[in-house]
Amino acid sequence: MSNKRRVCVVITARPSYSRIKTALAAIQAHPNLELLLVVAASALLDRYGHAVRYIEDDGFPIAARVYMVLEGENPTAMAKTTGLGLLELATVFDNLKPAVVVTVADRYETLATAVAAAYMNIPLAHVQGGEVTGSIDEKVRHAVTKLADLHLVSSAKAAARVIRMGEDPATVHLTGCPSIDLAAEILADPPLNFDPFVRYGGVGQVPDLAHGYLVVMQHPVTTEYELARRQVIETLYAVADCGLPVLWFWPNVDAGSDGTSGAIRTFREQAQPTHIHFFKNMAPTDFLRLLYNSRCLVGNSSVGIRECAFLGVPVVNIGTRQAGRDRAANVLDVDYERTAIQAAIRQHLAAPRPASDPLYGDGGAGARIAAVLATAPLRIEKRLAY
Amino acid sequence: MSNKRRVCVVITARPSYSRIKTALAAIQAHPNLELLLVVAASALLDRYGHAVRYIEDDGFPIAARVYMVLEGENPTAMAKTTGLGLLELATVFDNLKPAVVVTVADRYETLATAVAAAYMNIPLAHVQGGEVTGSIDEKVRHAVTKLADLHLVSSAKAAARVIRMGEDPATVHLTGCPSIDLAAEILADPPLNFDPFVRYGGVGQVPDLAHGYLVVMQHPVTTEYELARRQVIETLYAVADCGLPVLWFWPNVDAGSDGTSGAIRTFREQAQPTHIHFFKNMAPTDFLRLLYNSRCLVGNSSVGIRECAFLGVPVVNIGTRQAGRDRAANVLDVDYERTAIQAAIRQHLAAPRPASDPLYGDGGAGARIAAVLATAPLRIEKRLAY
Amino acid sequence: MSNKRRVCVVITARPSYSRIKTALAAIQAHPNLELLLVVAASALLDRYGHAVRYIEDDGFPIAARVYMVLEGENPTAMAKTTGLGLLELATVFDNLKPAVVVTVADRYETLATAVAAAYMNIPLAHVQGGEVTGSIDEKVRHAVTKLADLHLVSSAKAAARVIRMGEDPATVHLTGCPSIDLAAEILADPPLNFDPFVRYGGVGQVPDLAHGYLVVMQHPVTTEYELARRQVIETLYAVADCGLPVLWFWPNVDAGSDGTSGAIRTFREQAQPTHIHFFKNMAPTDFLRLLYNSRCLVGNSSVGIRECAFLGVPVVNIGTRQAGRDRAANVLDVDYERTAIQAAIRQHLAAPRPASDPLYGDGGAGARIAAVLATAPLRIEKRLAY
Amino acid sequence: MSNKRRVCVVITARPSYSRIKTALAAIQAHPNLELLLVVAASALLDRYGHAVRYIEDDGFPIAARVYMVLEGENPTAMAKTTGLGLLELATVFDNLKPAVVVTVADRYETLATAVAAAYMNIPLAHVQGGEVTGSIDEKVRHAVTKLADLHLVSSAKAAARVIRMGEDPATVHLTGCPSIDLAAEILADPPLNFDPFVRYGGVGQVPDLAHGYLVVMQHPVTTEYELARRQVIETLYAVADCGLPVLWFWPNVDAGSDGTSGAIRTFREQAQPTHIHFFKNMAPTDFLRLLYNSRCLVGNSSVGIRECAFLGVPVVNIGTRQAGRDRAANVLDVDYERTAIQAAIRQHLAAPRPASDPLYGDGGAGARIAAVLATAPLRIEKRLAY
Repeated sequence: MSNKRRVCVVITARPSYSRIKTALAAIQAHPNLELLLVVAASALLDRYGHAVRYIEDDGFPIAARVYMVLEGENPTAMAKTTGLGLLELATVFDNLKPAVVVTVADRYETLATAVAAAYMNIPLAHVQGGEVTGSIDEKVRHAVTKLADLHLVSSAKAAARVIRMGEDPATVHLTGCPSIDLAAEILADPPLNFDPFVRYGGVGQVPDLAHGYLVVMQHPVTTEYELARRQVIETLYAVADCGLPVLWFWPNVDAGSDGTSGAIRTFREQAQPTHIHFFKNMAPTDFLRLLYNSRCLVGNSSVGIRECAFLGVPVVNIGTRQAGRDRAANVLDVDYERTAIQAAIRQHLAAPRPASDPLYGDGGAGARIAAVLATAPLRIEKRLAY
Repeated sequence: MSNKRRVCVVITARPSYSRIKTALAAIQAHPNLELLLVVAASALLDRYGHAVRYIEDDGFPIAARVYMVLEGENPTAMAKTTGLGLLELATVFDNLKPAVVVTVADRYETLATAVAAAYMNIPLAHVQGGEVTGSIDEKVRHAVTKLADLHLVSSAKAAARVIRMGEDPATVHLTGCPSIDLAAEILADPPLNFDPFVRYGGVGQVPDLAHGYLVVMQHPVTTEYELARRQVIETLYAVADCGLPVLWFWPNVDAGSDGTSGAIRTFREQAQPTHIHFFKNMAPTDFLRLLYNSRCLVGNSSVGIRECAFLGVPVVNIGTRQAGRDRAANVLDVDYERTAIQAAIRQHLAAPRPASDPLYGDGGAGARIAAVLATAPLRIEKRLAY
Repeated sequence: MSNKRRVCVVITARPSYSRIKTALAAIQAHPNLELLLVVAASALLDRYGHAVRYIEDDGFPIAARVYMVLEGENPTAMAKTTGLGLLELATVFDNLKPAVVVTVADRYETLATAVAAAYMNIPLAHVQGGEVTGSIDEKVRHAVTKLADLHLVSSAKAAARVIRMGEDPATVHLTGCPSIDLAAEILADPPLNFDPFVRYGGVGQVPDLAHGYLVVMQHPVTTEYELARRQVIETLYAVADCGLPVLWFWPNVDAGSDGTSGAIRTFREQAQPTHIHFFKNMAPTDFLRLLYNSRCLVGNSSVGIRECAFLGVPVVNIGTRQAGRDRAANVLDVDYERTAIQAAIRQHLAAPRPASDPLYGDGGAGARIAAVLATAPLRIEKRLAY
Repeated sequence: MSNKRRVCVVITARPSYSRIKTALAAIQAHPNLELLLVVAASALLDRYGHAVRYIEDDGFPIAARVYMVLEGENPTAMAKTTGLGLLELATVFDNLKPAVVVTVADRYETLATAVAAAYMNIPLAHVQGGEVTGSIDEKVRHAVTKLADLHLVSSAKAAARVIRMGEDPATVHLTGCPSIDLAAEILADPPLNFDPFVRYGGVGQVPDLAHGYLVVMQHPVTTEYELARRQVIETLYAVADCGLPVLWFWPNVDAGSDGTSGAIRTFREQAQPTHIHFFKNMAPTDFLRLLYNSRCLVGNSSVGIRECAFLGVPVVNIGTRQAGRDRAANVLDVDYERTAIQAAIRQHLAAPRPASDPLYGDGGAGARIAAVLATAPLRIEKRLAY
């Protein structure tokens, strides 16, 4: 083995890849770091966007792959997926012998990464702790904070919260979020330079995007998963009548996504919408470029709160999934209710474009994360600071 | 199903049983609660004291048993044990359908219980959160706090810490620790009314206890597990020369306990000690009675810090395992160093017996826990309070 | 516990339920047997027909449910699904303590049931051993035979093969297949007495069935799963031009079914077929009734070889999936080739209906299986008979 | 990747290593093969001989390590260990991408290797199929045969049995057993050229070996595991009185070994035997050399039936564990009964040394196995030959 610090990053889902990609590149380029990339869970699966293809296309070598998602898309399956991941990531870490493990954000299965590293006495770095949201992510995120030894946070408020939870301030580093690094690339060169229908296919009519379009991305909310079907129907009817073409993205893997998917399929059969096109996935930068050039994002994705703050894209944020998250002026919050959704869309379309807000980062997060990983003391002993 | 709240308690180790036993009895006796007891991990295993036998002897019916401990007694096995427990407890909860799940204290495998309940949208009650110690327990305990919906804490300081970590004060209940309930029974009727050699066998010479004796219980410290062997040797030599009979208890399952066990076996072969007797396990109340009547407890068990505070038993606490834990006046802390251990034993033997201290409870914890479980609102949504 | 023999039957998929249903009823009705029904794997999942609903509707109480299907629908996921099932079924058996375990047929995940029982010293009864087919099922079936202690076979040829493989003839019982019991009920009262579109919904046009219709059921062939897409396209185009309404059933869970499902979705988008209706699932007797009243079954389901022999329904069997299986005169075998499929359909439509053939049973299998389970010696020691 | 066939061998226990070691060396040396060695299960564990150390000392690089043994040493733990191994070996194979997987003999956990390979469409080679024994090994061995694509058998009788079970004779290769290759090295240079007490430590008195000694190796019989304690006691008392020094080897991991270990510990405490020395493990060739120079082997190890046939060492084989296995003239079979065991030892000591018998191989197995793996067609489709 070389003397470089072996940094193992575990990516478990399509959105997590966007949230760590520039850090991966910076780790790979750093003279004192060696990248060990593990791709697991829905990041390996075709029906959740097959992030592994983008990872390979971007030239990152993969040290191990771990299939771990249980079918069922219900809370029992979520728990078992995490258990399986913990079992297997332990073996992966035992064989790879990393000096530090990096886990990203707060999806349920990331707790498997965190527990495996913590129990195996491997220092754990957590990217994007200290934020506040709704649902199970909230519990996961703060539990990971309590298992982590290094905190690489996106905002000053997040840093303050991690410290208030009792973490040693010396271990908390304000790096910004790597997803904003990607958004910064778009701001530097914004035109929509590809045809999304040609490049990504998808299903449904092919509307003309020349006069503006909406983007929709709505995930099921796990602790209310039986309602997922009813909730998405409100959005479907709201955007069906908005007068603009709609580019709709399927949800990622979570309890309840079958409810969401089923509702969308039924709607397509029954309403035969003519100006909604459905995509499964898109390369992160293509997706951000599409967002930048849209008139509005509708749904409950955290992209609306984070990247769109920096991109200055108007967002109609539906329901409780992003509740508690710090937000810039680009966001209007509404309930699962079609007339409210429509009114918010109209309000955005009538207003000037919001300014770019560096709330979640300024474009330099990846490099800062690599720098911290290369130089921070790697300790595994900690104790509540009060 | 009846209208009683179904309370699922998961017990994973011998010491955890002592820490919840009176609460089990109170839940069972409560008119509005139904007890669903799951026995798992080392609580099922002969070589870690086979707690399941005591549980059965005490008349608690067992709803499910889950073998989950991986061999190896190293950090990788700890992680995998927890993953396996998470997988299987999810199935158990899916079949038992509890209204609330109770997890006890901070052993590594308890995180499996916590994650399964949290991910399955079952309210989670955590007994003994908010304390401060060393090693991996520290991370586990606070991670469980962040996953838990109800906090049943042992001390006022613990309550304050849980609230400072951002938990809603309305969900934090100061109940005391059920292990103190057992200690309170001893205080009410203290004489050593059984012969430990007759009742529990064990190996080694049978010394005369009439003129006082020491008790030793020393666990390996997981994040330093390669040192376990060397650490226990210091204690072995320290007590071998103390002039009093020694009753030594084998460690429970943890990374490194093979180091500890191996050191003890080698010592017995080589030193042929004549006044040390080795026990595997003891019924909790017998153990507390034995402790009450001892001259001193030596080692690093939390019993020394908690129950012995209430019992007024002098304790020589070795090393970092109990570092950070609030302690009463009965504890002398020393390093892994035989002369220091011997000096502390001598200091205790020369001093008057410490007074009883209600630091971790007053004897009514079990009943209070049952009352909270019967009446507290059961919610699963929470958000950092700042 | 009563003195009845506790018979644990594990059902892991929709088709397996049809293959054991009358035996379940006979076990439940038998005075010396107690039924412990475990429902697991794709039998619990909505997107594979949610067999558990039919099981509940039929009034069978469920002793335990086990989610175990890994996402991915590739060979790695099949192996891991089986491993997970083995882990969990061991816990289920440990808690249920059956006197005998029954496993059905040869799906890959049934090996989990067989291994768990064999390793736990629980006598294992295997229903439908000794048959010959293609693909992984072949390996699974005979491996289960070598783990099983009682062989409840469907045909005389199967009995002979089990004995030639070295099993003790005293443990081999020719019972017939319980699926034929269901077919026998249809023969006794054959008219199509329900509207499949009203009762089961599904997607696609609603064709008029009055003048005859085809049924299609085509599963991916696991060891050739990358070909699944291309194979099903041949069938889609073959039946699209046949001039009769087509009732198409989605495949069950297996490596490659995403290929099959994807091909079907693409075909529907592009070809917009007007007389094909797609169903997800149907109650077993409704499905057999629909088959009985059809003009022909097309695909590679074993129903074509087994139940349709007894029902006297013409079958176009495509490809290698049923290769080696003993067949009656109702079957025409063709390759994955649209003109060959069409020619075989035409040949069947022009010929008289085949006679009923008792090759796989005569309608009394369920009762015979219960009788064997109630009276056969339950031993776990065996040795190759040569 | 090179054009060499990637041969993945999975070793799960100390005895299995002896049974494949010369094949590993031959694979490694073969110009057209690449060795991928996976070490798993008890082969990684200190208390079962830590075979991994011998493997490393012999210079074989290890591609992956998999901890998978569940604590409990009961049948439930055996099943779960196998399930866990299946889960994890699937991931290992998915990452290593072997052209062929080799599984050795018939220990329960080897079924995990076999199922993972079979389900993942990787050709499976089975070493030592077709033999006949007692207990669960019998079921495991033949189940593996039905999953395997290449059969590398040890004896002509084994070859005949594999073919009678329905395997294609073209896939059955009579190679002999690699363990005999090690025995052949001893025959070429037999003197006891090391001091076992100096090299291996162990516990107990150090007897003088100059005038001959016995070796004992007795494993628990899994399907009778509650009897393990009583069975081993008969052997302990039988050899305690035989007048020769005794070198006793601890059993390997299996349900019941705690019974065996416990009995041995109790015997040592109570009987204080002066001429029995206990070893945990020994390098395979040292062990064979020790056996060659012994007066007799007592117990139920298959080494007595196989290697000792070739070495010409007298064996007292106790109980049913080796029942059914083909044997040479060196073996006397007795029941678990101390006087019968003593009588058989005396009979051997009074007789001339048996001749070497090539029943299980002639010393060239390793090279033959490598040659088959390099040249045999690698197919995964098979069908019962009758």
